[in-house]
Amino acid sequence: MKISLLLTGNELMSGDTIDSNSAVIAKSLRDLALLPFKKLVVGDDLELLTESIQSLAQKSDVLIINGGLGPTVDDLTAEALAAAAGVPIERHPDAMIELEKWARARGFVLTESNLKQADLPQGCEIILNPRGSAVGFSLMLHDCLVMCTPGVPSELRPMIEQELLPRIRQHGAITTTTHISRLRMFGITESGLQDTINRVFPDWPAEVELGFRVQMPVIEIKISTIGDSSLALNRHWTERFLAHFSDYIIGRDSTRLTQALNTALAEHGKVLTLAESCTGGLIAAGVTSEPGSSAVFTAGYVTYSNAAKMQMLGVSEQTLDQYGAVSEQVVLEMASGALQASGADIALAISGIAGPDGGSPDKPVGTVWMAWGEADALQARKFYFPVARIAFQRTAAAIAMDLLRRQLNKLPTDVDYFSELKKTTQR
Amino acid sequence: MKISLLLTGNELMSGDTIDSNSAVIAKSLRDLALLPFKKLVVGDDLELLTESIQSLAQKSDVLIINGGLGPTVDDLTAEALAAAAGVPIERHPDAMIELEKWARARGFVLTESNLKQADLPQGCEIILNPRGSAVGFSLMLHDCLVMCTPGVPSELRPMIEQELLPRIRQHGAITTTTHISRLRMFGITESGLQDTINRVFPDWPAEVELGFRVQMPVIEIKISTIGDSSLALNRHWTERFLAHFSDYIIGRDSTRLTQALNTALAEHGKVLTLAESCTGGLIAAGVTSEPGSSAVFTAGYVTYSNAAKMQMLGVSEQTLDQYGAVSEQVVLEMASGALQASGADIALAISGIAGPDGGSPDKPVGTVWMAWGEADALQARKFYFPVARIAFQRTAAAIAMDLLRRQLNKLPTDVDYFSELKKTTQR
Repeated sequence: MKISLLLTGNELMSGDTIDSNSAVIAKSLRDLALLPFKKLVVGDDLELLTESIQSLAQKSDVLIINGGLGPTVDDLTAEALAAAAGVPIERHPDAMIELEKWARARGFVLTESNLKQADLPQGCEIILNPRGSAVGFSLMLHDCLVMCTPGVPSELRPMIEQELLPRIRQHGAITTTTHISRLRMFGITESGLQDTINRVFPDWPAEVELGFRVQMPVIEIKISTIGDSSLALNRHWTERFLAHFSDYIIGRDSTRLTQALNTALAEHGKVLTLAESCTGGLIAAGVTSEPGSSAVFTAGYVTYSNAAKMQMLGVSEQTLDQYGAVSEQVVLEMASGALQASGADIALAISGIAGPDGGSPDKPVGTVWMAWGEADALQARKFYFPVARIAFQRTAAAIAMDLLRRQLNKLPTDVDYFSELKKTTQR
Repeated sequence: MKISLLLTGNELMSGDTIDSNSAVIAKSLRDLALLPFKKLVVGDDLELLTESIQSLAQKSDVLIINGGLGPTVDDLTAEALAAAAGVPIERHPDAMIELEKWARARGFVLTESNLKQADLPQGCEIILNPRGSAVGFSLMLHDCLVMCTPGVPSELRPMIEQELLPRIRQHGAITTTTHISRLRMFGITESGLQDTINRVFPDWPAEVELGFRVQMPVIEIKISTIGDSSLALNRHWTERFLAHFSDYIIGRDSTRLTQALNTALAEHGKVLTLAESCTGGLIAAGVTSEPGSSAVFTAGYVTYSNAAKMQMLGVSEQTLDQYGAVSEQVVLEMASGALQASGADIALAISGIAGPDGGSPDKPVGTVWMAWGEADALQARKFYFPVARIAFQRTAAAIAMDLLRRQLNKLPTDVDYFSELKKTTQR
């Protein structure tokens, strides 16, 4: 089966946007053992779009078009597909229903621009978009199944598995089953993982395909086997993988690190408090991004200044003077202060130098101390992440959450996070 | 001048590699006021590559090919270009000299695989690659200048300005410039903006190109004009745009909302404190994601539970009982409590129902109260964002930050955020 992709958008041609959608589509097509053979990207130009659709449809069994479904004048996909098919544009009743549903759920009033999103090529079928106003649509062009999808990545993603793949299966009469296990890991890099796999599993069979996808801060591992009878093979190698990397695995399917942490807190019946300096509330925002977090989290202290550390958490002025705000002593006092002030069961405290300023030869930008645990068993650890400010904050927050997850699940907390950081964390 | 790009590599088709090279090339082409009109990506397939080169060269004045110059069997660009041009492959003396230089500098011995990189289409000219062994090369195909470049980003980058642009200038006898203004807006949707522009500027000239790009939560507006003498035209329409949308504009170029808020705080010499319930530290994390935030931010209180609201901010139990945690009275007490506890100049407090649970007929999921201001002039406002949890938190945090930016800059704070939300915010 020949599949091609057509991406449209001036921002893709000007270099303002880097296309990641086609990679997401291509990776999902692997589940059907398919690979696109051609990918064409053009700007928002009606004539060029029309001609591209015609020429790609001629050479393909399936053509996936991405982008150009928005409400503005530079969104031309519907018009171009209509022109390519030689049919008029008309207001699609199913698309209207979807648009009205979308607007009603949000209390919006549909504008003339919004309504344009229901003007589709005559004879097309709509493709549901659960996340946005841009309804997708499909049309047969000679023998080619043409499917038009929204360019917004968060809208496209859920549509691929739910809407596109089933239509492709049906169109191509694809009956092969693919067995897929998805595991989510934290604390190891893609290359570190690849090296370890090569070393530990020299006998990994070629027919068990291993795919990695970085979804910061987590890596998703996809173990795929093709064929109805490949389930046992898939299970066997998934189990071997799980056994070797057990403590790096935070869950299956779409588990987030924040979710893994909250689950560990809930399973052990612990309520968390947070005392954050350099991460400025990022860990609290992570924990509370999960539904139901009020059961496992009570109070967060964003003590950005020394005054706040003293006043909110009772860190002593003497400790701050003697050791500095980024020190083992201060994070331990922050953690006990947060436990005392909040009445929570378990605390996480963090203080570091996010940069770009504030470093010293002794404590360079990238230095961070973390303390965690219950009142009678606080531990602390120092890390060094010499990366840009935002990356520093995200890395520190993620590692802090993982340390707490490991602590709760009785896994080692002296783990070397990311093989590349090995040397530096031992400084 | 018509420019097209052809990218080759199986890893680009499978989704294992996301193409960033074409964005780098496109951005550099802006210096010559050029924009590629077509970008084609294909796998390592000789026939498809040859046919793609022929068809693109026919429709283009310049064709830039990227990838497929390596030493392995799946690197087919030289062979495909030779086939498209109907010339043989031969060992190129200049390429041999470059390869030998490259090997000598590194103490390498050239292998048979390396030598393959000097086997180029007859009649081509080499393009120097200062960073790697893959020499580039160019050939005229009818009237089209075809240039082949390496796929490794770090090798490609220095070649663009030093080698490709001069050849394009010469080929097209180019002297034109493009003028671009970039503005950043918050509080209006893409479709709302388009509708307003249609209504307010019916006379907007076609030669002043308007582009929108959503970079949540901000929209970037790009106003472009082509030609050396178009600077005044660009300025005129940029000024008109600015004048009409002034209070929605948070800055120029790459200004972030967090940056606009911190700048407003710094300009007015105010130190901020935050009292967050439903956003769980997201606003604090936003403010502290900016370098230098310690000058404008001191302490954040993530008071997720009622107990934390009372204990950390002194919210009275009676107020909580009488009005509930999501109420005007509670956010006002949170804001004054945070000002008192922290000694900061200005506060922002927020309490709402992020969902999915916790709503009631009276206060459905999506309801949120915000309070902001200095101790003697606190204001509060209610919003309703009936969207999924994460979207609710991000929208609420962004609007809260914008309200504070407006307050500091003496802009209206009773603005209707996002035209579609108009009705609901007035509930």
